Amino acid sequence: MSKYWSEFVHHLEPYVPGEQPKMDKLVKLNTNEHPLGPSPKVIEAIRAEADDRLRLYPDPDSGLLKQAIADYYSGKGHGIKRSQVFVGNGSDEVLAHLFMGFFRQDEPLLFPDITYSFYKVYCGLYQIDYDAVPLDETLSINVEDYLRPNGGIIFPNPNAPTGKLMPLSDIERLLQANTESLMVIDEAYIDFSGNKKGGGDTAISLVNRYPNLLVTQTLSKSRSLAGLRIGLAVGDEALIDGLNRIKDSFNSYPLDRLAIAAGVAAFEDQQWFEKGCDQVISQRDWLKEQLSQRGFESLPSAANFLFTHHPQHRGASLAQGLREQGIIVRHFGKPERIADYLRITVGTAEQNQALINALDTLL
Amino acid sequence: MSKYWSEFVHHLEPYVPGEQPKMDKLVKLNTNEHPLGPSPKVIEAIRAEADDRLRLYPDPDSGLLKQAIADYYSGKGHGIKRSQVFVGNGSDEVLAHLFMGFFRQDEPLLFPDITYSFYKVYCGLYQIDYDAVPLDETLSINVEDYLRPNGGIIFPNPNAPTGKLMPLSDIERLLQANTESLMVIDEAYIDFSGNKKGGGDTAISLVNRYPNLLVTQTLSKSRSLAGLRIGLAVGDEALIDGLNRIKDSFNSYPLDRLAIAAGVAAFEDQQWFEKGCDQVISQRDWLKEQLSQRGFESLPSAANFLFTHHPQHRGASLAQGLREQGIIVRHFGKPERIADYLRITVGTAEQNQALINALDTLL
Repeated sequence: MSKYWSEFVHHLEPYVPGEQPKMDKLVKLNTNEHPLGPSPKVIEAIRAEADDRLRLYPDPDSGLLKQAIADYYSGKGHGIKRSQVFVGNGSDEVLAHLFMGFFRQDEPLLFPDITYSFYKVYCGLYQIDYDAVPLDETLSINVEDYLRPNGGIIFPNPNAPTGKLMPLSDIERLLQANTESLMVIDEAYIDFSGNKKGGGDTAISLVNRYPNLLVTQTLSKSRSLAGLRIGLAVGDEALIDGLNRIKDSFNSYPLDRLAIAAGVAAFEDQQWFEKGCDQVISQRDWLKEQLSQRGFESLPSAANFLFTHHPQHRGASLAQGLREQGIIVRHFGKPERIADYLRITVGTAEQNQALINALDTLL
Repeated sequence: MSKYWSEFVHHLEPYVPGEQPKMDKLVKLNTNEHPLGPSPKVIEAIRAEADDRLRLYPDPDSGLLKQAIADYYSGKGHGIKRSQVFVGNGSDEVLAHLFMGFFRQDEPLLFPDITYSFYKVYCGLYQIDYDAVPLDETLSINVEDYLRPNGGIIFPNPNAPTGKLMPLSDIERLLQANTESLMVIDEAYIDFSGNKKGGGDTAISLVNRYPNLLVTQTLSKSRSLAGLRIGLAVGDEALIDGLNRIKDSFNSYPLDRLAIAAGVAAFEDQQWFEKGCDQVISQRDWLKEQLSQRGFESLPSAANFLFTHHPQHRGASLAQGLREQGIIVRHFGKPERIADYLRITVGTAEQNQALINALDTLL
């Protein structure tokens, strides 16, 4: 508390990220990091860029990275131009800018009641009115619930922390009905939603038909670069223009030289990306089956984590019991409907086995 | 323009950074980058950090870097604790957060009419009322002009683009008179204000006596790391708490793993830092003398640039004539009082000689 703060700062409720423990020995399955490291070509690109040129500012437009992203999605048949791509210092920064730039409207913003908890925080930061729309009884997003006047719609697909995927046909149905406000699909986990090989059914395939659709993604999950901070948005040029206006009024150079080089290399190494997604998807299937054999009920996951609960055990005591064995998972505790759920990141085969062993000790 | 933008976005006037040309051959004296590269220990630290750990999120608190900064300034006798340090993705991000967190007040914010032009942009972004206080007839900041009710005071020291330094005694005089609002001293260039060896008279020496003083710095100038994005603020813990609340409502992980490691190494290599400041200061003296011999009048500079004009030549035509010879300097053009001034970054000995040769051709 300080008398020098702007008034609204006293009422802010900041986001609480998953713990980043300083100990090395822990099995860390709490923040949905990728079990494999990034592509060796990414490491090479960083080392090649780390020289005297660091004395010079980066390209404020991150042009090479935008081009690599446009090329990647054009290669998938979606016809994306560089001017349709925005990049930021992690997808959290991209989200922050778009909340400020698009969601300060007369009608309330709509998002699910159980979802990425940073959305509410941005509303607090930018004083945006919102309605948290309850997930249905299966913990799914129901399109019909969003068919009403609004100042914007945002949800992750797959949703977090449920991991449930909305089919692209439902997203398109909503876009057809909702033409007067912006719709943002937050695809942090989309690359784990396909049938192996990564990619999934990204809504980027729709941006050229819907001028009010913006799709965000991150390199922290499927590209295994959480340790760098690179996020992106793809959409109609007028939406990207709006984001650029915010960015250029906030920080001219959000991405540094190393991040730009690393991001380009990450989008170019398709093989490494596919191998990584493939491994996560296989391990997710294995882990879900093992949990099921032990009485856990998991939601169908299209992400790199499982949202699961055990009818005979409290979520809090399971999380605590795992922690005592050196394994960290995420337990949100609220709202009530998910109080007994754990969100468990899919780790390496060894980590997943360690988790199962620890549960066998516990149960 | 888009109907999906928040209303205020239509009226934003974004900052325009100095040009970052894509051509290699240019002598680039337009954005105040350091002529020497960063410390070899910084490069080593980046390469050592670039491995599989990039799959993991960085420390959201950037604790090692905050500690290195606290240690550095404590070593200078200023007794700074880690909890008094804030870091961000470039000092522009730090400034953006503090404008939002501290300067939304009932009274107007005060800053010089000729100063870092991003301040006005932040006011537009966060809808902050401000008064631009004219520099006096010598293009200096006059302390008396700030002795009036205000919602905050900010100026760079040395000021940009003038390069003029305000003595610490004047800053303290203002702090003694101005106790009810926050004062921010933006020390992007302070390390070039000393008598060789770098460091200068930083106002960080005052933060433990004035709870309303916040000092910002950047690693882009004297630490030669513009290509990374690292900025910092030092002040009373309650001010740092306020910044953390904004940061944690915006982006949990503003600094990536490579930037944290590089920043630590940069603050640890005192010798490289001193050598670099020393060279810039010597070259600044040489360049100023050479310009003077050719009829230029330069303001006394405590920064790594000179703000200079020639009574017989228009600023615009000088800038254009230099560009035609492959040398870029910064020409702002307005306001009227500085329309004929050039802001010239102090480069390497070779670059500075090239500039002088080009002027000899021109004049």
